[in-house]
Amino acid sequence: MRIAQVAPLAEAVPPKLYGGTERVVSWLTEALVEAGHDVTLFASGDSETSARLVACSESGLRLAGFRDHLAATLVMLDEVRRREAEFDVIHFHTDLAQFALFKDIAHKCVTTLHGRLDLPDYMPVFRHFREMPLVSISDDQRRPLPPDTNWAGTVHHGLPAQNCPFSPRGGQYLAFLGRISPEKRPDRAIEIAVRAGLPLKMAAKVDKADQDYFEEVIEPLLAHPLVEFVGEINEEEKSDFLGNALALLFPIDWCEPFGLVMIEAMSAGTPVIAWNMGSVPEVVTHGESGYVVASIEEAVAAVEKAKHLERTRVRRTFESRFTARRMAEDYVDLYESLVKPLALPAVKVAATRPLLGTAPATWGTTATPIAAKPIAAAGKPLGTPIRTNGGGLYRA
Amino acid sequence: MRIAQVAPLAEAVPPKLYGGTERVVSWLTEALVEAGHDVTLFASGDSETSARLVACSESGLRLAGFRDHLAATLVMLDEVRRREAEFDVIHFHTDLAQFALFKDIAHKCVTTLHGRLDLPDYMPVFRHFREMPLVSISDDQRRPLPPDTNWAGTVHHGLPAQNCPFSPRGGQYLAFLGRISPEKRPDRAIEIAVRAGLPLKMAAKVDKADQDYFEEVIEPLLAHPLVEFVGEINEEEKSDFLGNALALLFPIDWCEPFGLVMIEAMSAGTPVIAWNMGSVPEVVTHGESGYVVASIEEAVAAVEKAKHLERTRVRRTFESRFTARRMAEDYVDLYESLVKPLALPAVKVAATRPLLGTAPATWGTTATPIAAKPIAAAGKPLGTPIRTNGGGLYRA
Repeated sequence: MRIAQVAPLAEAVPPKLYGGTERVVSWLTEALVEAGHDVTLFASGDSETSARLVACSESGLRLAGFRDHLAATLVMLDEVRRREAEFDVIHFHTDLAQFALFKDIAHKCVTTLHGRLDLPDYMPVFRHFREMPLVSISDDQRRPLPPDTNWAGTVHHGLPAQNCPFSPRGGQYLAFLGRISPEKRPDRAIEIAVRAGLPLKMAAKVDKADQDYFEEVIEPLLAHPLVEFVGEINEEEKSDFLGNALALLFPIDWCEPFGLVMIEAMSAGTPVIAWNMGSVPEVVTHGESGYVVASIEEAVAAVEKAKHLERTRVRRTFESRFTARRMAEDYVDLYESLVKPLALPAVKVAATRPLLGTAPATWGTTATPIAAKPIAAAGKPLGTPIRTNGGGLYRA
Repeated sequence: MRIAQVAPLAEAVPPKLYGGTERVVSWLTEALVEAGHDVTLFASGDSETSARLVACSESGLRLAGFRDHLAATLVMLDEVRRREAEFDVIHFHTDLAQFALFKDIAHKCVTTLHGRLDLPDYMPVFRHFREMPLVSISDDQRRPLPPDTNWAGTVHHGLPAQNCPFSPRGGQYLAFLGRISPEKRPDRAIEIAVRAGLPLKMAAKVDKADQDYFEEVIEPLLAHPLVEFVGEINEEEKSDFLGNALALLFPIDWCEPFGLVMIEAMSAGTPVIAWNMGSVPEVVTHGESGYVVASIEEAVAAVEKAKHLERTRVRRTFESRFTARRMAEDYVDLYESLVKPLALPAVKVAATRPLLGTAPATWGTTATPIAAKPIAAAGKPLGTPIRTNGGGLYRA
């Protein structure tokens, strides 16, 4: 297929430092090229890709000191629009800005929503532009939106299989990786480690907004002899940090839309002990790639179980559910369902739990192929032709 | 004419509290209706207008707690676009968001830029969308943009003639009105008043961002017996505050795009003593409606002269240059030059100083009527058919 990937201009693709969305766009783009598709990437000029790059800004806007990204984004979208005939499908990762400009060709467009959707600020767009097919990165991410939102599918994120190489031996410490912020609950991670009597290594960034929280709540807890705060780590250090751990603790207290760090740990063979919120029950296969818990007690018990979980089994679960290749295959299925709806046979969909209680009886088995321009129809129930498993958006 | 006014959704039109742009949109809209035009106002649902209101959000987004206004703005722009055939001209006050969506009908669109233009973040839009005719609110505001920017004219802001009624007697204090921030230089105002031996009343808001500046720099100066800090005042109090003053001090240290408070003072008959920066020399007629100064010494001398300036003369200058009616007439001339370029006779333009040294020899006298779709042509020199005097954007 002739596929356009439209990335945010905030960071290069892949990003030089942080940037969850741009990392996923990079992995998807490379996997689509690998699968033989003709891919054009609209992104910042310092991006690196095997696809055809259309440079839409000199470099990633954030590191270049730009605070308002709308102007550059509008110019990029105008260029995508001018060239739309070159593509069978246009895949946006740019939040909202494209909705008005592409509504008349929405049948060949799809937008992956990478962030939280519980802000009322965004609702007008989802209520108004019902033509635009949307992709969620977890089923749970959809919860705040009305049931008749135009979902084309859920596609979990995926990671290149060798990015966090399998580490057969693991290690003896528990790992916490992410931002120090109240919704990530680093305090819970510390409590779990102390109760389990195991060392905790915390590789964590402290954003300016979270400085008070760090100083008042977390810093006093770091004095415990079992706790080691290693600060920020880079991509290379991350593989070792995760691979050498006994388990990753992910004790979140918010509805994480995906949570990339979970599949990075799984890729290394490290089981994940995660709170039952947001995407977690979709990403962690309980008893196979980790444990889904709801209390400190359950988490401490899960640490004991994790010691006996075979790391090869964790890795196998990762390989079957969360590789970039799987993500690209899912997206290609989804693109095909959008642009050639009548030519497709029935699409096999994986079973998944109903959202908001609106799933039809047939859902979760085999979906009827969707009719011409089906995605533009409002009132489509949640649970849609393409349904897959895997990955999430992690903001380190 | 059938005119669409497209307001920001941040505040109601007119705003309930602050909101310089929405106040100007309200004044312009009412004056256009008064002049017999068929005006449709796209704005928040709690706006009040004599025009036909198209409510594009329930209420002003800022006071409703919305932080990201893009979604609601995109929905509004889509509605404007859907109804475009109903209008002879569409006048945007919404910064950048409309550029991509209206480029193919740019010949009937115009955008007034209400803010500072010296941020590199905005440049991609001005470089790329050369079809969209732009209006500056002062000539000086244009300075950061390239000389071939598609300017349709400068229209200074205007105020309803009775908003700040003429106050024949004036008073014995100097007035400072605005935000307490380094670029407004309240410290200069205090120094001028102290050196002139006159009381200074400061009606000023302290934004959170400026709290440190207020506490460290300004608060210690307020102890002086001549200085009275009266805090924030509302619209009704403003007329009295300005009308009862001997002069308004406007000792800015940044390129103010317009500065509404200057024409509000003039409306009351109160002369303005203002620093020679930004729009100031365009707005203040030196020796008639106030004094343009470049140092504390000049400002102190100007205070002495202001005592002898006839307040009726200040008011007359306001009436001839800065009423909402004059602003509306200028915009109608400009709209007509856009949509009926071939039917127009030569348009008389006022003399004004060249910007960036690129004004052609003929500029400032009589402009040739612009050809069909002239606004879409790139490379048009600064200095354009419609050129007027008056008004400015004041963020209290």
